[in-house]
Amino acid sequence: MEELFKKINIKPKDMSLYENAFSHSSYANEHKKKKDYERLEFLGDAVVDLVVADYLFQNENETEGEMTKVRSSYVCENALYEYSMALGLNKYIKVGHGEEKYGGKYKKAIVADIFEALIGAIYIDLGYATARRVVMNIILPYIKDPTAQFFSDYKSALQEYVQTEQKYLSYNLIKEKGPAHEKEFTIELEIDGIKLGLGVGSSKKEAEQEAAKDALSKLAEVKVE
Amino acid sequence: MEELFKKINIKPKDMSLYENAFSHSSYANEHKKKKDYERLEFLGDAVVDLVVADYLFQNENETEGEMTKVRSSYVCENALYEYSMALGLNKYIKVGHGEEKYGGKYKKAIVADIFEALIGAIYIDLGYATARRVVMNIILPYIKDPTAQFFSDYKSALQEYVQTEQKYLSYNLIKEKGPAHEKEFTIELEIDGIKLGLGVGSSKKEAEQEAAKDALSKLAEVKVE
Repeated sequence: MEELFKKINIKPKDMSLYENAFSHSSYANEHKKKKDYERLEFLGDAVVDLVVADYLFQNENETEGEMTKVRSSYVCENALYEYSMALGLNKYIKVGHGEEKYGGKYKKAIVADIFEALIGAIYIDLGYATARRVVMNIILPYIKDPTAQFFSDYKSALQEYVQTEQKYLSYNLIKEKGPAHEKEFTIELEIDGIKLGLGVGSSKKEAEQEAAKDALSKLAEVKVE
Repeated sequence: MEELFKKINIKPKDMSLYENAFSHSSYANEHKKKKDYERLEFLGDAVVDLVVADYLFQNENETEGEMTKVRSSYVCENALYEYSMALGLNKYIKVGHGEEKYGGKYKKAIVADIFEALIGAIYIDLGYATARRVVMNIILPYIKDPTAQFFSDYKSALQEYVQTEQKYLSYNLIKEKGPAHEKEFTIELEIDGIKLGLGVGSSKKEAEQEAAKDALSKLAEVKVE
């Protein structure tokens, strides 16, 4: 984990906290004495919420209702997953053998949880100011980038867009491969007949979400330019 | 407000924050340039959530699910109202004339909001550590007192109790006074025919909640002794 600590520029004191932060309950159960990350995640969730609230309060002139909405997009599972992957946290996740077989290490929810658990560990180990700095360094580039948008549900967000713009949206399954327990679906998305998104996933639903995400980022680029 | 600052042991730097913290939107609207407390309340809410999460993490051996449940009882409107009244914050609330006429200064939701807004102001003015100390000084006595319990809905909590214990619960309206826009209802509560709670409120619903709260505190005393 030395590489990670360097990347986020912290000097850990209590290493056991970071070990817990990366241990999924399936791993903790197999290694009876280990703690899992759930309590740290609960704490980290509150830290991230406060740090983003603080940023919005001090830097944006939004109402309470707007701040609530904007914050929820920066702390939704899709956003936390992105931060986690950007830091390469998935490399350190420890899951049990049963979970491992089904790709637990790469499950979106677990990868997202790990980000909050790490922030919880930093808060306990090094205090609020350090945890705040780490969170801001990761999230700020996304806040500053007008094409980076997070939605808790990309399909619904895109649906809202096409309804407002009176456009026609369709999803088409263009590829399906792999054995029954390891399927891979590829979905193509068209808006008014123009191919605008491509998504790959282990279920049709997941692939559709990815395709909608892809389309939303392209639409955001168009708007910004 | 000198008295308040002394009581919570802080030395404010930016007084305008504290003025905003006590200004309801109805007051801010009447005095066009003033800001209301809503943005500070949003921030303070996140501070209180983190402080209580931190305490539970470091002092109790609860699971994530238990911590979520316990925290929500210490940060629900009824709890925040209690903290606010214990500090006498209602004395400083500024509401508009229209709101004042209908007792806005004493409305539970507003009194509860003010507590979070004050904590938000302290966080911005003096930092997280000071805000945390102030929150803990107020909440800790309630956490340590086994007879002090908060429920977001006292009637439901009492209903759960009587169902488990197979007892019979009834609410009786025993007094109703005042003109139409300033009614005062008094409700008496019996469990298995024994008078156990009394509640007064501006609506029957509110009086029932107060009666249920009264009964729950008596039941808690019995359990502790």
